[in-house]
Amino acid sequence: MMLQDHIGYEMHALASTLFPICRSITGEGVRRSFAILRSQLPDLKTYEVPSGTQVFDWIVPPEWNIRAAYVVAPDGQRVIDFDDNNLHVVSYSEPVDREVPLSELQEHLYSIPEQPDAIPYVTSYYQRRWGFCLPHRQRQELVEGTYRVKIDSTLEPGSLTYADLVVPGESSSEVLISTYICHPSLANNELSGPVVATFLAKWVMSLPRRRLTYRFVFVPETIGAITYVSRNLQVLKGCTVAGFNVTCVGDDRTYSFLPSRLGDTWSDQIALHALKHVAPSFTRYSFLDRGSDEQQYCAPGVDLPVVSVMRSKYGTYPEYHTSLDDLSFVTPTGLLGGFTALRRCLESIEADEIYRTLVTCEPQMGRRGLYNTLGTGRSERMQRVRMDLIAYCDGRHSLLEIAEIIGIPIWELHAVADELVQHRLLVKLRSAEQKVAVHG
Amino acid sequence: MMLQDHIGYEMHALASTLFPICRSITGEGVRRSFAILRSQLPDLKTYEVPSGTQVFDWIVPPEWNIRAAYVVAPDGQRVIDFDDNNLHVVSYSEPVDREVPLSELQEHLYSIPEQPDAIPYVTSYYQRRWGFCLPHRQRQELVEGTYRVKIDSTLEPGSLTYADLVVPGESSSEVLISTYICHPSLANNELSGPVVATFLAKWVMSLPRRRLTYRFVFVPETIGAITYVSRNLQVLKGCTVAGFNVTCVGDDRTYSFLPSRLGDTWSDQIALHALKHVAPSFTRYSFLDRGSDEQQYCAPGVDLPVVSVMRSKYGTYPEYHTSLDDLSFVTPTGLLGGFTALRRCLESIEADEIYRTLVTCEPQMGRRGLYNTLGTGRSERMQRVRMDLIAYCDGRHSLLEIAEIIGIPIWELHAVADELVQHRLLVKLRSAEQKVAVHG
Amino acid sequence: MMLQDHIGYEMHALASTLFPICRSITGEGVRRSFAILRSQLPDLKTYEVPSGTQVFDWIVPPEWNIRAAYVVAPDGQRVIDFDDNNLHVVSYSEPVDREVPLSELQEHLYSIPEQPDAIPYVTSYYQRRWGFCLPHRQRQELVEGTYRVKIDSTLEPGSLTYADLVVPGESSSEVLISTYICHPSLANNELSGPVVATFLAKWVMSLPRRRLTYRFVFVPETIGAITYVSRNLQVLKGCTVAGFNVTCVGDDRTYSFLPSRLGDTWSDQIALHALKHVAPSFTRYSFLDRGSDEQQYCAPGVDLPVVSVMRSKYGTYPEYHTSLDDLSFVTPTGLLGGFTALRRCLESIEADEIYRTLVTCEPQMGRRGLYNTLGTGRSERMQRVRMDLIAYCDGRHSLLEIAEIIGIPIWELHAVADELVQHRLLVKLRSAEQKVAVHG
Repeated sequence: MMLQDHIGYEMHALASTLFPICRSITGEGVRRSFAILRSQLPDLKTYEVPSGTQVFDWIVPPEWNIRAAYVVAPDGQRVIDFDDNNLHVVSYSEPVDREVPLSELQEHLYSIPEQPDAIPYVTSYYQRRWGFCLPHRQRQELVEGTYRVKIDSTLEPGSLTYADLVVPGESSSEVLISTYICHPSLANNELSGPVVATFLAKWVMSLPRRRLTYRFVFVPETIGAITYVSRNLQVLKGCTVAGFNVTCVGDDRTYSFLPSRLGDTWSDQIALHALKHVAPSFTRYSFLDRGSDEQQYCAPGVDLPVVSVMRSKYGTYPEYHTSLDDLSFVTPTGLLGGFTALRRCLESIEADEIYRTLVTCEPQMGRRGLYNTLGTGRSERMQRVRMDLIAYCDGRHSLLEIAEIIGIPIWELHAVADELVQHRLLVKLRSAEQKVAVHG
Repeated sequence: MMLQDHIGYEMHALASTLFPICRSITGEGVRRSFAILRSQLPDLKTYEVPSGTQVFDWIVPPEWNIRAAYVVAPDGQRVIDFDDNNLHVVSYSEPVDREVPLSELQEHLYSIPEQPDAIPYVTSYYQRRWGFCLPHRQRQELVEGTYRVKIDSTLEPGSLTYADLVVPGESSSEVLISTYICHPSLANNELSGPVVATFLAKWVMSLPRRRLTYRFVFVPETIGAITYVSRNLQVLKGCTVAGFNVTCVGDDRTYSFLPSRLGDTWSDQIALHALKHVAPSFTRYSFLDRGSDEQQYCAPGVDLPVVSVMRSKYGTYPEYHTSLDDLSFVTPTGLLGGFTALRRCLESIEADEIYRTLVTCEPQMGRRGLYNTLGTGRSERMQRVRMDLIAYCDGRHSLLEIAEIIGIPIWELHAVADELVQHRLLVKLRSAEQKVAVHG
Repeated sequence: MMLQDHIGYEMHALASTLFPICRSITGEGVRRSFAILRSQLPDLKTYEVPSGTQVFDWIVPPEWNIRAAYVVAPDGQRVIDFDDNNLHVVSYSEPVDREVPLSELQEHLYSIPEQPDAIPYVTSYYQRRWGFCLPHRQRQELVEGTYRVKIDSTLEPGSLTYADLVVPGESSSEVLISTYICHPSLANNELSGPVVATFLAKWVMSLPRRRLTYRFVFVPETIGAITYVSRNLQVLKGCTVAGFNVTCVGDDRTYSFLPSRLGDTWSDQIALHALKHVAPSFTRYSFLDRGSDEQQYCAPGVDLPVVSVMRSKYGTYPEYHTSLDDLSFVTPTGLLGGFTALRRCLESIEADEIYRTLVTCEPQMGRRGLYNTLGTGRSERMQRVRMDLIAYCDGRHSLLEIAEIIGIPIWELHAVADELVQHRLLVKLRSAEQKVAVHG
């Protein structure tokens, strides 16, 4: 498969459509976003979970919606307005409509002195608060006096919305691809995840043969993942053989890997293999550096084999959780890189099967046109790759393990294996995930 | 628990009381030393094993006692006198009372040319000899002529003396703490061991809750350890889950670790963890560098999980086995450091239990006051430690393993575990030593 | 055993006798070579396998013999003559007797522009061809005109010849030593192999006690190894506990190691141990660098524990597969080094047994004359080696594992073990190969 540049532009266009919508962990913003994603993925199913539902240790919170919010200065000017940027309001702010002196207003303002031009992203889902976020430079210019503050929001019983799409394959073994859709106007963390996950789903559905079943999950972070796990625990634990948390996959700076809890799953091996060949200088994090839904998926008692393959990891780049994480930081090439790294992971999973040679000792490659008939003591690269592949196809090593030994990408080695199957030199025994003990 | 400086001074004072006594592997010096230790540890029990008793491959030797020893020069002056320093006489010297020419005397003198001011420490337990040790500088000044040599010693049937103290805990699983009491006026190797072991016993007895049983053993080196093992083999092999050979724990220069025979026991893990946090630059030796009672405790057929946690290891410092290894080389801070390293080992053992989380997926820490309710994408160290601890409390990882993963001392992590047990987020399953296969 | 310099000269003399013979994978040259080897090894048995016999995926080719071959230039001079150097003819050239213009002759000529004075070694066993090899410098001097080409060869039904020699030991467990005898006038790759293997066989037969059975195999490369395996699969798989492919063992430049397929066999451990002590700076290759009969012996379904211990590995030195790989490149000291490295491997195998101490705790070495009776806190090297050996003789560690822990060659440690067996401190339990799971 060729890398398809246009996909980068298509993904960036989708991100641009979704960007202005004010999403949170519940509310109309999430539903509008799903409607847009459904234009790409007609089979995407959405679910509503009522406020107040117990999900493990948590309770689904009230639904939050917001129509408008602003602060009017003593001189009558609107100095902060939700219409300008939805980051201006603390997510889940309760409604307010008051006049307050500057000193009291200050207790409800959030800014970052070190980044005076950035609006920070602040939330208060489980503690009732109201607040405004603004650039520190602007905050310093506020004059003494009485301010009118208005937040036209509702915090009422409603529901939490999530979506999934299960793409069946030959096997009921599942690959989980999860991303989160709860952030307002933030691009890398997080519109890149839903956008790349959407295009991965489209790509998976276009495959002529799918060995595995693919489960795409779009949830609000933390509470959504907990809700999803609580409602699907049995199938997730019973069927998941690999999983990827898709987040921060849209910028151009680097590639990153965050392992599963114990770092020893098939997903870990697959992702490390893919990244090594896609971006050899990728950054390798520890599970201790986690901060996203792998916390839920890898928790004791859940223990799914979920890793994160990222571009610049959340919390490590200065634009993170500010208005600077926008659609100039996330680019078509950045998104394409994130998409490609994850596509290579899925290709690796599909390719990772176990073969056995049908010939004892070395096969005679020359008479099959697979080796020089003139002996000079030198051989060519592909001749060696074929012989090396045969040498390790003992029915015990998976194609991924052999690719690691030989040092070439499994997506190249897979074509060689296919050629040798055609020549009746190899036979496919079983899929690699059957070597994998499902956790639990 | 605070480090208690006064313990360093108390230990140094005890060492000063014991220092002048002429100890050997048997005899009154050992008994007088035990009488002094019993003033600190009233429950210390002593045992007498008659000379001639077979202990494995060895036979308990005759008892050696000495009253006086000196060499008189041709001019009538006492040039060497046991009353000045008990190192002047080769330990286990047979009695002698003769006049000899200098040339014959020389065959019975021991000195170190490279350390001309030091009296060496020399023994001959199993071969009848007599001899004197002296500074090389003094030896070179001896003039020709006839010398009177007198050693008023006895080598007669008697007994070998050793002592132990078993401090029972909730479990019959035992921690062995062994040290040796056979050296005359030598401070680091070896008065530091008995002194630190005595204060560790006092500390253990002061603990409000003792999960494990502690066995403190005070023996003469080699023959005493062999005797002790031969008389306690069944209980030692059946109950010992960890063990520490306490030697050379009194100087200020460094910290050292010497592993068990295979280096893979719980004691090895505990000691490495404790030293890493107490003294990160500690020196790590091989079992091939051993030279103390770990030889006996780790021997095939005995195979106890015994390691050594030391300050400057025997054989590695220039004062070793000379009169320079005295109470200026061993200091209150040096002893306190040795005591603290070993106390941390015992604290680690007590703390090393296995927990399981009681919550599926991430618990909601915010409503328990254990996490910020205001979300900014950043979290504090203790919040992360709590979440990391919960993430690994899967009922399979011990607290020590989790402390190693997270990178903090188990004695700090233990307090966090206690807090989470209070919050009903964790439950204690069992003790880590139940994961440990007792050797043998 | 002392290194015996004269063996180097004897081996070089044998190589000189064999060198001029035109060997290939079949034919009279191989039979004449075996007749010469039988003068050294009277019990060497030869076998003939008819052309057309199916051996696994291959068919034994027609037998090739050659009497003469030359090229006559337009001026009537013989410019290439097989009588000068048997490398001048492509091995397995079909007969030809024609006049051709230079342009057509060029299609049948082989030379190396980068090595203008070397005749390359070229073969075409399975594709009918004829050709001449010559120095590139000479090729460039050929003038236009008509050339007479004559190859007086036969390619007719006959047989493939191989030989073996099984030297029985106390156990039916076998060590395989395989080398190949198909190269014409080439010295390191490959006369060094058959010559060193011959002298190893003589040395093995001279041993007073042979624990293991030794199987020496002399085959044409690839087709011969495949033939040998196909006719001896059951005994090879059932009995082989270690194996060595003997090739390129005659030059002076370096030592090399090429592992078995998975690199985890007893042979790998033995060879790495021996080379570490014989030639610490040896070069370590990967199984991916293989190019000799380990391809057959380690193939899936055969999976023998075969490694290569070499001097300069085939394919890595500039003289490889050219007329420069001659008896000045291979030297008496080079051959002796190759012989010694492999002899050390076989000594290591013979010595690798499992012992258990007969004494609980430390034995009293002093009364056995094995330790100083005067104690000064210092001990000598051999005293320590004895104590270390006893410490690890727990009935679970083999002598090789202990030699690795202690850091001395097993052929030295073996003598210490014998001494301690004499003193009834150790008892031999069983042979190390009984720890080794035969592959398959």
